[in-house]
Order: sequence, then structure tokens, then C-alpha cells
Amino acid sequence: MTVLNKVNVEAQAIEAKKASKKLMVLSEVEKNDALLHLADVLEREYETILAANEKDLAAGREKGFTDAFMDRLSLSKERIADFAQGLRDVAKLDDPTGQVLSDWTLENGLQVEKVTVPLGVIGMIYEARPNVTVDATGLALKSGNAIVLKGGSNAINSNAAIVEVMHKGLEETKIPKEAVQFIASTDRAATNELFTMKEHIDVLIPRGGGKLIQAVVENATVPVLETGVGNCHIYIDKAADVEKAINILVNAKTDRPAVCNAAETLIVHKEWLAANRDALVSALQENDIQVHGDDHVLELIPGSVAAGEEDWSNEYLSTDIAVKSVDDVVEAIEHIEMYGTKHSEAIITEDGEAAQKFLALVDAAALYHNASTRFTDGGALGFGAEIGISTQKLHARGPMGLPALTTVKFLMKGTGQIR
Amino acid sequence: MTVLNKVNVEAQAIEAKKASKKLMVLSEVEKNDALLHLADVLEREYETILAANEKDLAAGREKGFTDAFMDRLSLSKERIADFAQGLRDVAKLDDPTGQVLSDWTLENGLQVEKVTVPLGVIGMIYEARPNVTVDATGLALKSGNAIVLKGGSNAINSNAAIVEVMHKGLEETKIPKEAVQFIASTDRAATNELFTMKEHIDVLIPRGGGKLIQAVVENATVPVLETGVGNCHIYIDKAADVEKAINILVNAKTDRPAVCNAAETLIVHKEWLAANRDALVSALQENDIQVHGDDHVLELIPGSVAAGEEDWSNEYLSTDIAVKSVDDVVEAIEHIEMYGTKHSEAIITEDGEAAQKFLALVDAAALYHNASTRFTDGGALGFGAEIGISTQKLHARGPMGLPALTTVKFLMKGTGQIR
Repeated sequence: MTVLNKVNVEAQAIEAKKASKKLMVLSEVEKNDALLHLADVLEREYETILAANEKDLAAGREKGFTDAFMDRLSLSKERIADFAQGLRDVAKLDDPTGQVLSDWTLENGLQVEKVTVPLGVIGMIYEARPNVTVDATGLALKSGNAIVLKGGSNAINSNAAIVEVMHKGLEETKIPKEAVQFIASTDRAATNELFTMKEHIDVLIPRGGGKLIQAVVENATVPVLETGVGNCHIYIDKAADVEKAINILVNAKTDRPAVCNAAETLIVHKEWLAANRDALVSALQENDIQVHGDDHVLELIPGSVAAGEEDWSNEYLSTDIAVKSVDDVVEAIEHIEMYGTKHSEAIITEDGEAAQKFLALVDAAALYHNASTRFTDGGALGFGAEIGISTQKLHARGPMGLPALTTVKFLMKGTGQIR
Repeated sequence: MTVLNKVNVEAQAIEAKKASKKLMVLSEVEKNDALLHLADVLEREYETILAANEKDLAAGREKGFTDAFMDRLSLSKERIADFAQGLRDVAKLDDPTGQVLSDWTLENGLQVEKVTVPLGVIGMIYEARPNVTVDATGLALKSGNAIVLKGGSNAINSNAAIVEVMHKGLEETKIPKEAVQFIASTDRAATNELFTMKEHIDVLIPRGGGKLIQAVVENATVPVLETGVGNCHIYIDKAADVEKAINILVNAKTDRPAVCNAAETLIVHKEWLAANRDALVSALQENDIQVHGDDHVLELIPGSVAAGEEDWSNEYLSTDIAVKSVDDVVEAIEHIEMYGTKHSEAIITEDGEAAQKFLALVDAAALYHNASTRFTDGGALGFGAEIGISTQKLHARGPMGLPALTTVKFLMKGTGQIR
């Protein structure tokens, strides 16, 4: 691994804040031109990035990381071309800043405009996926924000090389290269310094596992955009259509088990289960889904193991599933209230009243009637780009597109008005 | 003072959460009927409230509180009628929930709606103004939220009586009385318990002085809507019209010096100061404005005292003002960047370019060109009601109306869609 100089996180954050002032007055065309140029430079300089990536991969092999982890870490010419394409896609999106959300004139003639503006400086804290380095930078710059990047230590050489290439590219654009700051340290203390830099950083976005996100939420005084833990439920109601129910359950559980919008618990109405046990059991077996069930489920579903209290909260991220049997939709809602993470929850039913109750009463970012929870995703919903999926209620909830990286200003234009 | 039973804050927060589920499905008419009924009951039962208020006033006199404090604490039949009128005004406002912000259909037929919904449970932490007990309850109930009230201990008897009357009133409405919880304790530990009740409380809103707000921001893990500290600046540019400049300065400083949108610092262009010193000095003297100036100002403005570093950050809340002289608009912007609280900032100038620069580069909730900062106020801007003035960037910035008490849900209606 490259020997890194001692970093000065505060100095870098101050640089970012200064650069953000220059960035916020650039035009949409100037920002888009810069993104398109960055895309070209990344493709042109891919060998620099791959050489650095090789160092991270060698260190990873030595540490005996899993294949899945090594795959996430690993770059190729094609993957770098994908990063570049991502930047070109972001350039095509509408500029989220400078939008007049509303405007009116007071009786005294004072003109009021509520306008979207960049947040300022975004602190991005993430794990070992080098793509986040490019994706987050593209979204930040497009929305007129500077960014401070703190990636996982196992990808540090790859990230440093990507940022070096982007810095070189930015020198040929209107965006000051200081708008992209990379904390070149594997020291956790450097991350912790970001937590309290309220003067210089406007928002922290943690991207990664539940532990990382919790550490940021609990320790940061800088405002946080909380993303992603999903303990999602599929509730199969008494009046559920069998085919829809089983298709949706299998899709939500097995399409990509490791993502946050995958189902982790099936809640099933006891009457539906009694009537459709065989169809359900076949589907579970065909798809190698391991059931952790309550006592009633244990009796009815062969091969299931007893669910403990922890199963109701577990984000398996595998083909395991917790199964809870209930007597009605109210019991299902109460179970979700107790164990859900307010991400995505689905009801499968042909009973409009039960669906209505579920959609009105369950407290979550995304609620589904007769569809898979897998659609909670900025790409699937047509947002064009996604910073993450918010499970908080303030500022942004659910899939976050570029507007989540903006705030507002009230601009008042007068001719001497006093009160 | 009434002897209070030991309170169980968590049990009350759980009650509020349960009640919020019932409240969120009520219709606009049901909520408005309840608010109108509460208004009538408050007017009818005013004597109960005044009797309790007398206890707080007696205790306050004994403690030797200032006249201003005693005035804020003091209730009368007329003030209670004002509270009732406030509830009637809130009933007239549009329901901020159930608004479809956008809706679209995916190619696969999945229907998507982004709809506003109540936050759930609001925790209101405030000082000794009993009007907040009624105002905050009205805004919370109108927006479909339950509320947990923790008022200042010096108003505890008044607040308890107001809540008792409101509870009695709610029994005759569709809103469960458990939707309004009052923490009947003068113990600070009871307040601190609210800080970390993420399971039951969705947002904390501190209303009061800077110390209270900081204590909540620093210690709460529940999300906070931060309101109100305002170190607002008036920048008189080289090209400022003399009459506009002086009128605005005097208005922003003296109209209501104790409020957060009052001016605390004058930044003045040296050339303007040289040319208009006499007019400025007369206006300052006529309005008893005490100047704390930099060296240049000390020489030019008779009677001014030297400003120390702390003056640039001081929220005087009196007719004192800090005065800083500068060479251009950029220096003014840098001063605001260093010492401002991102609340309200004004430039007085006839130079459109300087105004444009100021409005684009100063980072604050409200920016004024040729008008007084005193207009940063939900009432003045026509919002109908105001929960507070947010100085944060996420969720809500500037004066917050009812929409700040809502979040969104994505509702997806399908026919079996999978991904």
C-alpha cells in the first residue's frame, strides 16, 4: 500500500467550502461540460486507475476477503467505462438548483421567491465500492455541491487514483478541483473528524452497512441523510390471489437478496396459509428459501426452523426468511410497526379495504399493494440517479434523486420596505 | 405550586404514538371541527386557566422575575380569547396532509403516488410562554400529528390547566385526547428522556433561547427542527440610497429588538459612511442605538464603543448594534460567512450587480435587497401560521408553515408487478 501523508481533514473541508462558493454560481452548461469532460478523462486514464486497483486487490487477496467482496472491489476497463457513462447520464438530468418553487408579492410590493440552491459541502462516508467515488462526485457537482470523500480503507489506492484522474480532468473545466476532496487516510479518526465539522460540512451521507450508518447517525452533529437498512415485509392477506402472492414473494426474496429493498419477513394470514399451503411450500422449496417460522408456521411448513425474537428484526440479506402467521391485517400492521425499518412494505390482497388500511396505517417510505418491494429504487422509479434510499422522515424519504442535495433560499426584493 | 406525581415520559410518548395512528386517518372536517370545539372550550373555561396562572404568577413574583418575563407568563381573558382565535385561524388553513405531490405510472403499469402524510408524534420543548401550549397543539393536530408538550417549569400550572381544558374538550371530538400529552414535571431529566425516544417521537422542536435550542441539538438522537437564533446583518453598500438605508437599518434594529429577525450588525461601505456620516449619526442618536464599532467606525461615529471579537457574534436583542466598515461587497459577504447564523441578511444598494452577488453568495434562509430583515416571519409572508423559523438546511429552511410538520409516503398500486 502507498504510504500516505498525514491528512488535515479540517483544512480539506475548508478548501471544499471555499470551492463550493465558486461552484454554486456556475451555469448548468458549465457544470454539464465539466461532467462530460470528467467522463472522457476517466476513460482515457483507465490504466492509472487499474494499476492502483491492482494494489488494493493484492492486499485484499492477502487478507483473504470473500469472492463477493473482491468482486465489488475489482475494476476493469468496462467498469470504468460504466462510471463514465454514469457521469454522462447525470449531465443529462435537470439541474436541481435555481428552481423557483414559488413566488409571490406582498401587499407592500415586496417580491418573494423561494428558490432551490445547493446544500454546500457534502461529506460522503462509504465502504469499499470505488464506484461510489465517481457516482457521488457526479451527483454532488451536478447539484452545485462540493464533496468530501471518505471511502473504505480496502479501496484506498483505487479511490485515490480515481480522484487524482478527476482532479486532472477538473483543471480543464470551470469547476475548481478543490470542490472534490479525498481524505487519503485509513485512520478511523479521520472519519470521526468529519462528524462534527458543522462549520464546513452541510450534510453527511453514509453509504454502506447498518453498522457504518449507525455510527454516523449516533456520533455526528453535522446533519445526516440516513440511508438504507431495510427489514421489508410481504403481507399475504386472506384475500390474496395465489399466483400474485407467490410471484411477488419469490421476487422480493430472491431477485437480489443482498439489497435493502429485498423482503426479509413474510407475514401470512392463517386462512390463506391453510388453503394454499402446498403451493407456498413448493415455491419455497424450488427457490431454496429457508423459513424461520412461528409455532403455527413450524407445523405447516416442512423444513422450517423456529424463529426467535431476533429473526423478526433480522436483515438476512440471504434467501432466509422469517415467517409470521396472523389472524388479520391489523395484526400484520402491528407486527410491522414493531419490527419494520420504515423502508418498503407490501400487502398482497384482492380486498380493497384491507389494502387501503395497510397503505394508510403502515409507517414506511414505500407501501405496495400487489407489487414487489424491489421497486423502491431511484432507477426503477425513473429518477435517473439515486443518492440513496432515505429511511428517515425529515428532508427526504424513500429513493433520493438530485433534489435531495438541495435546500432553499427565500429571496426578497424590495424598494425600501420596512415593517 | 401543585405537587406533581412522578411522570412516566415513555408511557406518555407511547400513548401519543398510539393516538397518532387514530389521528392520521381522520378527515380534514373532523380535525377542523375538533379545533373549533377546542377554541370554544378554552373561552368557556378561561377561569380555570386564570386560577392556575395566578399560582405561576405568585411563584414568579416570589422569585423576582423581570417585568418582561412576568408579562410573557401572564394570562387574561383576552389572551385566552386570542389563543382560541389562533385555533380558529389554523382550522381555516389547507390540510397539509393527503396532498399528492406527484404521480406517474411505470411502463409495467405500476402506479406511483408521492403523498404528504403526518410526521407522527411531535415533541415540543419550550420555555415559559403558555401560548405555545395552545399554538403548537393546534398546528400539530391540524397536520394529523400527536404532540408531547414539555413547557418551562415556571408556567407549569398554567400549562397543566390549559391541557386539562383541552383534554376535556377533545373528549367531545373525534381526536383522541391521548394525542395531546403534557409532561407534568419540572424535572430536567424528564426533558432529557424525550431526546432519545426515537421509537415513539418523530421530531423534536425546541422553541426558546439559544441555550435551550443548543441543548436539544447537541443531545438529541431524535431528529430536531432547529429554530431561531438570528445574528442578522444589514449591509449598506457604496451605492445605497441614503433614505432607504437609514429607514431599513432603524426598522430592522428597533422595531422589535428582541426577536430573531432583528438586525444585530451593520456592515457599512467606507465610502458611503464617509459621504453620509451625519445622516447616519443623527438616526442612531434619535433612536438611542448604541454602536459597538471597529477602529474606523470609532473615529467617525461619536459615542461608539470599541467592538471586541464577541460583538460580531452577539445577538444583543437590545438597541445595541455592532458596526463593521468594509471596502466592498465581497468583504461584507466574507464577514457574514464568518459570523452569521444563516437566518436573514440584507443588502441596501442601487447597484444591481452588487445585489445579485450578495443574494447568490450569502448562505442564509432569507436574503433581502432593499428591505428590512423583519419580514422573515410566517405571518408577514402569508403562511397563516408558523411553527418557527428554521436556520437549518435540511427538511425546512426559513419560516415554517404547516407543511414542515409532514413527510411523504410513496404509494405503489400494482397488479402483481415483479422486477
